[in-house]
Amino acid sequence: MTPRETVLWISAHPEPRSLTGSLREQGIAHLRERGHEVIESDLYAMAWDPVLRPSDTTSGRFSVTADTRRDYLEGTQPGDVAAEQEKLRRASAVVLQFPLWWYGMPAIMKGWLDRVLVSGFAFGTDEATGRRLRFEQGQFVGTRALVATTLGDRAASIGPRGKSGELEQLLFGLLHGTLAYTGMSVLEPWALPSADFTDTEDDPFLGLRDRLDGLFSDDPIPYRPQFTGDYSSEWALLPHIRPGETSLDVHVVR
Amino acid sequence: MTPRETVLWISAHPEPRSLTGSLREQGIAHLRERGHEVIESDLYAMAWDPVLRPSDTTSGRFSVTADTRRDYLEGTQPGDVAAEQEKLRRASAVVLQFPLWWYGMPAIMKGWLDRVLVSGFAFGTDEATGRRLRFEQGQFVGTRALVATTLGDRAASIGPRGKSGELEQLLFGLLHGTLAYTGMSVLEPWALPSADFTDTEDDPFLGLRDRLDGLFSDDPIPYRPQFTGDYSSEWALLPHIRPGETSLDVHVVR
Repeated sequence: MTPRETVLWISAHPEPRSLTGSLREQGIAHLRERGHEVIESDLYAMAWDPVLRPSDTTSGRFSVTADTRRDYLEGTQPGDVAAEQEKLRRASAVVLQFPLWWYGMPAIMKGWLDRVLVSGFAFGTDEATGRRLRFEQGQFVGTRALVATTLGDRAASIGPRGKSGELEQLLFGLLHGTLAYTGMSVLEPWALPSADFTDTEDDPFLGLRDRLDGLFSDDPIPYRPQFTGDYSSEWALLPHIRPGETSLDVHVVR
Repeated sequence: MTPRETVLWISAHPEPRSLTGSLREQGIAHLRERGHEVIESDLYAMAWDPVLRPSDTTSGRFSVTADTRRDYLEGTQPGDVAAEQEKLRRASAVVLQFPLWWYGMPAIMKGWLDRVLVSGFAFGTDEATGRRLRFEQGQFVGTRALVATTLGDRAASIGPRGKSGELEQLLFGLLHGTLAYTGMSVLEPWALPSADFTDTEDDPFLGLRDRLDGLFSDDPIPYRPQFTGDYSSEWALLPHIRPGETSLDVHVVR
């Protein structure tokens, strides 16, 4: 019996009748059938505002990190931001689902990260302890994260030597620099290539169902912890670890 | 005597008095002193809308690529999108300047790419010739591109083995998957680490001036062309080229 968990499903597509919309609907239904609670952030449907701006409390020169941190700590954030943070706080897993546009997230989803993951909530230094909140010391240690994306390119093009860049490396800033940075256990991303030529009649889930079933049990990508001796004090990987290599993959324990 | 060129300077920061704002102002002034024409897209100042949505002409199910392509070809695009495309058409170089937020562009700039670089204008297949418009066959062959970014991390952290990911690989989706994909000659990105602790009194340009002076003369990153025999028909790098390597760097001719 799977324990009941809370999953936050964040998605971004302007057309609900798209492949993204259909996978989202079926994925959420499947998780609910399995007994999980699913909280949704369908960013287009919510008319989510992705543009980080000074709040009403800012006077004078706007300092992005310091002012959004102060608003977070003092409870003066915009209501839409606080609501998303509350969803994330409740979730034990996050699914980020989007079509790959220009080899990244649609702007509306990037702006969810920009606005919601502010200092104090998702990174920065803990005032009480002085601890740097990142990776194994991050705020969301214990939360699982799955990226699910659909793309026009063929499978080989996002494979290990593919022209578009191997997917885990292409999405390094999201998987490692954002999700793992905040402490999350990040699963291997799920991707559907050749999405424009995909027939969902035989298998409407296209393999995503298995990945959802493993959301709480699959092994995450073993990114190196930051503070346990793999990196120098300037945050370069120490020379004796995978000597001479410079691929982004050096940050994964293989 | 440098020939007079037209430069499109795209920037994204919510605070004009920020380091980004100051570098922008000085950079543009410097290019003008050198005799170039500079066209500006200061995205926050323009209140640029980064969210790609169906236009008024869309009826029924919105197909992102096909419908934005049709609007482009038929002249029914939103006016703000057409205006940015016209700027890009006139430019012989583009500067994209932004603070690195969550290891990527602020959402407002990602949404410039999402909305402006549509099929027919910046990618897709040429209807007359059947040519695939990308890389060496791209629409913007001859246009130069410089990414300029400021970030909180220390220099070593975006170096070859840095914890945050080596910058050119971290930005692969932008430098290679977007700018080079559309045909542009992409220069090594300029980055200012430790931006929160940077004093601009001694050198307000912090090295950016040299890079602007080389905008039309520096060697671009030698990304491999797509259609001249380095890749298989499935777009994986052929086995005899840098055999066994899987770093994103295999796509650069070293």
